[in-house]
Amino acid sequence: MYVVDLNCDLGESFGAYKQGNDEEMLSLVTSVNIACGFHAGDPSTMRQTVKSALDKKVAIGAHPGLPDLIGFGRRNMDISPQEAFDMVVYQIGALNGFVQAEGGVMRHVKPHGALYNMAARSTKLAEAIAEAVYKVNPRLILYGLSGSELIRAGTKLGLLTASEVFADRTYQSDGSLTPRSQPDALISDLSVTVNQITNMVKEGTVKSQQGTDVPILAETICIHGDGKHAVEFARRIRDILQAEGIALVQAHDNHNI
Amino acid sequence: MYVVDLNCDLGESFGAYKQGNDEEMLSLVTSVNIACGFHAGDPSTMRQTVKSALDKKVAIGAHPGLPDLIGFGRRNMDISPQEAFDMVVYQIGALNGFVQAEGGVMRHVKPHGALYNMAARSTKLAEAIAEAVYKVNPRLILYGLSGSELIRAGTKLGLLTASEVFADRTYQSDGSLTPRSQPDALISDLSVTVNQITNMVKEGTVKSQQGTDVPILAETICIHGDGKHAVEFARRIRDILQAEGIALVQAHDNHNI
Amino acid sequence: MYVVDLNCDLGESFGAYKQGNDEEMLSLVTSVNIACGFHAGDPSTMRQTVKSALDKKVAIGAHPGLPDLIGFGRRNMDISPQEAFDMVVYQIGALNGFVQAEGGVMRHVKPHGALYNMAARSTKLAEAIAEAVYKVNPRLILYGLSGSELIRAGTKLGLLTASEVFADRTYQSDGSLTPRSQPDALISDLSVTVNQITNMVKEGTVKSQQGTDVPILAETICIHGDGKHAVEFARRIRDILQAEGIALVQAHDNHNI
Amino acid sequence: MYVVDLNCDLGESFGAYKQGNDEEMLSLVTSVNIACGFHAGDPSTMRQTVKSALDKKVAIGAHPGLPDLIGFGRRNMDISPQEAFDMVVYQIGALNGFVQAEGGVMRHVKPHGALYNMAARSTKLAEAIAEAVYKVNPRLILYGLSGSELIRAGTKLGLLTASEVFADRTYQSDGSLTPRSQPDALISDLSVTVNQITNMVKEGTVKSQQGTDVPILAETICIHGDGKHAVEFARRIRDILQAEGIALVQAHDNHNI
Repeated sequence: MYVVDLNCDLGESFGAYKQGNDEEMLSLVTSVNIACGFHAGDPSTMRQTVKSALDKKVAIGAHPGLPDLIGFGRRNMDISPQEAFDMVVYQIGALNGFVQAEGGVMRHVKPHGALYNMAARSTKLAEAIAEAVYKVNPRLILYGLSGSELIRAGTKLGLLTASEVFADRTYQSDGSLTPRSQPDALISDLSVTVNQITNMVKEGTVKSQQGTDVPILAETICIHGDGKHAVEFARRIRDILQAEGIALVQAHDNHNI
Repeated sequence: MYVVDLNCDLGESFGAYKQGNDEEMLSLVTSVNIACGFHAGDPSTMRQTVKSALDKKVAIGAHPGLPDLIGFGRRNMDISPQEAFDMVVYQIGALNGFVQAEGGVMRHVKPHGALYNMAARSTKLAEAIAEAVYKVNPRLILYGLSGSELIRAGTKLGLLTASEVFADRTYQSDGSLTPRSQPDALISDLSVTVNQITNMVKEGTVKSQQGTDVPILAETICIHGDGKHAVEFARRIRDILQAEGIALVQAHDNHNI
Repeated sequence: MYVVDLNCDLGESFGAYKQGNDEEMLSLVTSVNIACGFHAGDPSTMRQTVKSALDKKVAIGAHPGLPDLIGFGRRNMDISPQEAFDMVVYQIGALNGFVQAEGGVMRHVKPHGALYNMAARSTKLAEAIAEAVYKVNPRLILYGLSGSELIRAGTKLGLLTASEVFADRTYQSDGSLTPRSQPDALISDLSVTVNQITNMVKEGTVKSQQGTDVPILAETICIHGDGKHAVEFARRIRDILQAEGIALVQAHDNHNI
Repeated sequence: MYVVDLNCDLGESFGAYKQGNDEEMLSLVTSVNIACGFHAGDPSTMRQTVKSALDKKVAIGAHPGLPDLIGFGRRNMDISPQEAFDMVVYQIGALNGFVQAEGGVMRHVKPHGALYNMAARSTKLAEAIAEAVYKVNPRLILYGLSGSELIRAGTKLGLLTASEVFADRTYQSDGSLTPRSQPDALISDLSVTVNQITNMVKEGTVKSQQGTDVPILAETICIHGDGKHAVEFARRIRDILQAEGIALVQAHDNHNI
């Protein structure tokens, strides 16, 4: 049987600013990454999001980001590994306050935006983030870009990891995502998405923009929760996965056989 | 034997801004309240402060404040009980991330500044804060102004509490602190301080500005860690307490007999 | 001829968070109050909003608020008059940077949210804010609640003022707004709104919730720009005013005759 | 006659956090760059600093920085030229609010920290910042690293510029500063500093770490205002300049003959 986790960023509202389709997305995914107040999210949003996720029995993860609310954590910042460690510990802890208050358990951590991208390439940042996760709680699962330095750093430390792939992004022949600055970065054709997901989960490969088959590990698929079509897109992905005989299971609840 | 806890606010630096005499104070007190990033403190400062406190075997507490860095959390804000709950859960959690990462245990929570003062008078804010502490971890000790709504709310919920008194502040006949706006709010004469502390701990009373003896419970004494004379003042308080046969013991490690 | 100004808060987006119907509202009002980054707004939003307002020839005002992004500047804070002065000067200046950069002229200042409400009642805060406006530029028009301390403080200093009324809020017999916490604070019946506006502009009176006719000066009407029905509501108000022979004119471009 | 401007960063306190030797430095320099609230500074500090600078008749400049208070604006951020433009307009405007309120005139703008360094190398960021300065007020003088892209961008737009050199930093053969990460970045020997300054101002050259004489334009010398020895160091620099017959004059008040 084939299995995969379906994850989504959640709790990205801030004060009076509402964002995302949180309630609908919670019915469609198996795990959520909840913003922790640095790039998005605020204490009240965090409490409500944790509560909703527990109600829906969806796996809860911390989604720590750079301290850049104006930039939504999407602008690279020249932080030291120690600073990365500190901001990740802080944010995991803050979210965990709400998880404990609601009687739940945090299952994973996935860095957000620029922090995620920097940790995919920089060994030192990746190791600092993995260590932060490990020291707070070695049973937390570390989510990272499939094939990235972050996954390697987590594995090296003895953390469980979840290798993440993207349903709507194209890949390069070295296994990296096509940068968003390029015109062919996003997949708009649903049939292409279907093929890509199916191949990634079942065959462990992705067709690169250069035409080659690149080996890739797909343990969790990231889908976006904001935007007008997010809910509809998520529903289709679920249908496709079901039709292909791929079960939606939280990461490390089971393994592809 | 008489015992009392001696506590101090710590970790109030922020980024490039250094504040306080943290290392010296850690050698003089039995418990510290560490800023959590809202009114003061930042992730790196929190990590270092937690580590130093663990090295010195001083009891670690969270010191949650209002989200007002410019005002150092000292300006009252018209927050709802739910907002108070949320910001306290967030900050306890954030600090606890560092405590867990360093292998320690958090022992108490003491609200900071305007949040402390508002929680002393408002039953609803007091109950919200006590509930936040209880839901994150019911074994945490709640520090609050002796005789305050916060202490009552904590007790009502079943939390251990530590009733706090001040060495260098004068009291009114209703047991409240003389407001700082009044000229006689602060005690500058060390011998008056000595008498006040001794009476509070041994007799359970304090001489009010109106001349009456007011019953007061003194389980922990707050001393300030910033300012030029803070370290010297703390040393003298320790000497006085020792001379008076009052042992310095973390709150609830022991009780006055 | 009867005239009145129609004003709306604008530029309340922040980073990735979009809010309001700014472009539509700009076609419907005569003056706008642009958020300055403390309770809402960011530099990029401010630039774009200033540019759009200049394109539409709508009067530009600064909309300074409390430093409380999470609370959208709606929570009272215990600030000193000096702090109020300083935060108003800062925010007027910041917005004026964009106005100057686009070759325009700032016409007015209207405090936001809790700062507006506190300045309506507190003489000291009102005077501090009026002085801030005056010292930056004595030709700026100060917008404030009709009958408020803020209007009095502005007049006393020699500033032009615009007395503001609300189309969808009820009034008390002392001329104050019915607090939002009360069930009858908002007017939902459009015909009641029509009568209220018409009477305020033409007769200079408002029917209070106690049934009395209260004298009120209506130089500018505040309408809200966010919410689903804001644009439709603004259109109706414009139609009503036109049908009643009340011309929409920027404050102090003309006076009721 | 030889002349040079002596400038210093000022107003870097934030709320309860005090930093720098502002009053002493104001008696020693000819121009100051005042923090505008993004990397340091707050409205109250800005007002007081502007007032003190006007009292001492020192030239006032805005010192805009990256929105990174925790990092003191010293960490590179991946901002777009448009974002750089917007944050510089905002900060110049904010400071100018206080300058106008005090009846003074702003004379210059100098980007801070990482923004300064990025603008020294990136043509696009340099042009965006120069355009921000120009559009707010084309009479403002743009301070930048001597030989940098920022100076080129300012000149190209028609702004007056002030080429800045450092008294206590060593230079490379291409005219750039030796990175702080290298052991020989700072000059600790005062006699070396004396020679360097004198040569830069009088001969227009600096001896590089590679031993070559590099042409350099020295219109303003940056000295640091924080640290224990800042005031003493500034006094010595003044004495040296006087002894060498180099007059301290605000940039563009006069020119080297």
